[in-house]
Formats: sequence, C-alpha cells, structure tokens
Amino acid sequence: MELVETATAVVTPADARARMRRGEWTNITSGIAPGFAQANLVILPRDLAYDFLLFCTRNPKPCPLLDVTEAGSPVPRFAAPDADLRSDLPRYRVYRHGELVDEPVSIASYWSDDLVAFLLGCSFTFEHGLRDAGIPLRHLECGCNVPMYRTNVECRPAGVFHGPLVVSMRPIPAAMVAKAVQISGRYPAVHGAPVHAGAPASLGIGDLARPDWGDAVPLREDDVPVFWACGVTPQAVAMATRPPLMITHAPGHMFVTDIPIASLASD
Amino acid sequence: MELVETATAVVTPADARARMRRGEWTNITSGIAPGFAQANLVILPRDLAYDFLLFCTRNPKPCPLLDVTEAGSPVPRFAAPDADLRSDLPRYRVYRHGELVDEPVSIASYWSDDLVAFLLGCSFTFEHGLRDAGIPLRHLECGCNVPMYRTNVECRPAGVFHGPLVVSMRPIPAAMVAKAVQISGRYPAVHGAPVHAGAPASLGIGDLARPDWGDAVPLREDDVPVFWACGVTPQAVAMATRPPLMITHAPGHMFVTDIPIASLASD
Repeated sequence: MELVETATAVVTPADARARMRRGEWTNITSGIAPGFAQANLVILPRDLAYDFLLFCTRNPKPCPLLDVTEAGSPVPRFAAPDADLRSDLPRYRVYRHGELVDEPVSIASYWSDDLVAFLLGCSFTFEHGLRDAGIPLRHLECGCNVPMYRTNVECRPAGVFHGPLVVSMRPIPAAMVAKAVQISGRYPAVHGAPVHAGAPASLGIGDLARPDWGDAVPLREDDVPVFWACGVTPQAVAMATRPPLMITHAPGHMFVTDIPIASLASD
Repeated sequence: MELVETATAVVTPADARARMRRGEWTNITSGIAPGFAQANLVILPRDLAYDFLLFCTRNPKPCPLLDVTEAGSPVPRFAAPDADLRSDLPRYRVYRHGELVDEPVSIASYWSDDLVAFLLGCSFTFEHGLRDAGIPLRHLECGCNVPMYRTNVECRPAGVFHGPLVVSMRPIPAAMVAKAVQISGRYPAVHGAPVHAGAPASLGIGDLARPDWGDAVPLREDDVPVFWACGVTPQAVAMATRPPLMITHAPGHMFVTDIPIASLASD
C-alpha cells in the first residue's frame, strides 16, 4: 500500500530521484513518474567500456543505449543532466569478478574515475503502450514478473563480450499479435518490435513453464508466446567476463530518466 | 556512358567489390549493385575509436553505424564478411593531421593493426525510396550533387569529438513533405526522417544558394527546403581533431555492402 500511495505522490523524475538520493525511496520503481522512460544501469571499468559499447551498438535490440557517461562522470548528461548515478537509484547490485558482494542504496564508496555508466532502455516503457491499446499483459494479471529465457541465438560478439540473446515472453492473443508488433515497434530505444512470435522450440526454449529468470506465466487459449529482446542480455554477457568490478541496478529498481516516453517514438 | 553501361553489368555487391579490388573499377558507385546499401567509410587509430564510437551512438541521425571492425581487422564481418576494406572501395582519401596527403585506390600500404574502420549509412539508400514514390529529387534533375550546409545545431559531444550537425537539403513539393518524412523515416540506418523542414534561417543557414559542400539546387515554386542529417558530419567532426591518420572513402566512391536496403527498414 505504501508503494502505491507514495508512487502516486511522486510526479516528476527529478522529485523521484531526489527522494532516492535522500534514501527515502528504496523500493522498486514500477509506477514512479509515469510518462518518463526508466533505464537499466550497467557500470564497468573504462578498459572494458569500448568493447561493451561496441557490443551494444552491434546488438541494439537487447542493448538499446539511452546514455553513456564520460569515464569518471556519474552524470548522465543526456538522459537526466541533474542526476547523480551514484545515489539516484533506489538500490544497486555490486559484483566483483562475477560474484554479488553488496546490494547498497548508494555506490558512492565504490565510485572511481575509472568507471563508465551505461543506461539501457527498459521494456516497462512499451508495456504502457500495449496496455493503453487494450492488449492484455498476462504477467501483470498474475501479479508476477515477466518470464525470461536464454535462447540459442548468439548475439554479435565484440571484443571480450559474447553470449546468447535473452528474451522476455508475453502471451498475446493471436488476434492482437500484429498490434503488439506495431506498438512496440514504435519504440526501438526500449527493445522495439518482438524478435520472434510463436515456435519457442526454434529459439531453443524447451519448456515455457521453466524460465531462466522471472516467473512462469501460463498462456490462455488462443494466446501466442511473443518474444522480445531483453535487457538482461547485456548484464548476462558482461557478467560472463567476470569483470573486476561491475555495478547494476537491483532488479526492478530502475533509473528514472527525464526522457518523455513519447519522445522515444521512432520517426 | 561507360559508367552507366558498366554499372548495369555489375549486379551483385561481391562482383562489384571484386572489380574494385582488381583495380578495374575506380569510378563513383552511384547505380552499382542496386538494392544494396552503400556506406561511408571512416578509419581512425584505435586510441580515438572509443570516443568516435561514442560520438556516433550519441548522434545516430548524422552517424548511423552499419558496422565497426575489430581493431586491426579490415573485414566488416556484419556488413560484408568476405570484403577487405583495404582494397574494396574504388578510391580513398588519406589525411595526416587533417591534411589530405593521398587519394589512392588501395590503402594496403597505410594499414596497420592499430586501425578501426567505421561504416556509416549513406542517404543514397533512401533517395531510391523517395524516387519510387514519385517524389522529385531536384539535384538529380539538375545532374548535380546534393547541397550540404553546416548548421548552428551542435552535435552531442563525446570525448575529443565535437562539432556542428551538417545537413543535406532536398527541395520537396509542399504537398509531398509528409510523404518524404514517412518514407525516409523508415530507414533510420541511413539518416532516417528529416531533422528540419522549411525555415533554413533557424538552422543558421543564411543563404541556400551558398552550400558549404556540394552544389546549390534551386527551389521551384511550392518547394519547401527539407533538411536531413548528413554523413559529412562525422567526417568533419573527426577531421577537426586533426588525427595523426584518418582514411575515408573519396566522395561518391562508397563501400558497397551486402545489406539489402529492404532489410534496413525499421520495425
């Protein structure tokens, strides 16, 4: 209840971030600052940044870049120029050599001039569009997380980074698949159109009831499983290299940008 | 005449590149391998590559990345995996510290393990779409090059790279402006929709008759000047840093990729 009431009271992205900075908001960001894009965060040492940036540009569907900071700067000058990425998310995850070592509400003590922060679009954004168009979102009906699967599709590698595409799955009524493609396709900066509709086996997904991340969501009669490239991909790929230090948002605890969702619509 | 006849005879991108590699084709690439995207080439030393890649990702309209090679590799493995960027363009320009020093047909003697090649989308591609839709292209009617202008719009800087957006201008009949937006907007990988329609003064363009590059193209009655982000932008921005070595295609002598134009349509 507190979440819903407080979320309703927080209106602008700057207000939301100020509360997070003061440690007053450590919850998930669903419903916060409606109308503004939220982002996945990946922070890596500078000497991995070129390969990771190249990986993202080669794989724009799973890794849609919203902003990349200058090395050492915690300010995402294009996504939210008055924000500080060291404090303005509700919760972080800190990994050393691929192992989770901390889940702090500030990363000021981990920050150094050697770090580069990447903000990547998040599918929260297009889900609003789907709902507004009357397309049911089964995972929200179930009150659970979207199911995510490792596929047999290899991303385009770049330097030290390589790994499989991870997809999220939403059951869509067959008569609404085309509409779901068209609506999500308007937002390439937040994963865009699906990568696959139907035929999970051809993606190497043996059993939809056993996702690799998130929760299983049953299909209703006439539902088709529709697969979108997922923001877990870049995190999984970065983690596989076991970098000396990697910092991400905690799941569901996203960065709230100043970018109006409507401005992300493709031309 | 030779150009037209020979261009018609060359059908596949691989055939076209093989002829260039053998030095049999040193001409411009207009009309070569119809249906396949052509690309701008920028080659820079590895230590500038991160900043340049970041500049391109921050400015996708003037700098739409089609491929980036691994440092030292002349093979664009995604745009044309059997090509060699040292020999497969008809003509190059070599700059040292910002000065043009050579215009060779091969850059094998300049190549080193330290170089990274960037392939950037070229507006040739969407011009086909405009023509197919019956939109007149005045510069082709005049038999001249498209006019290009430096604007008062600053690109988003990245590291050492910064500079103004350069635009190309095409006069479009007022009743066809919307159609021109829609058609070019389908191809974000080749500059996408226009950045501006009408009102050249608000872009800092004082006199359309005096372009900074290319040729002046007069507007007919009821024509509106429509401005697209231009591939000259990344070259001009890179040149301004006077890098120790920079290699580009010679104007009009583009790299012919294996990428079907139709596959570049946005979702």
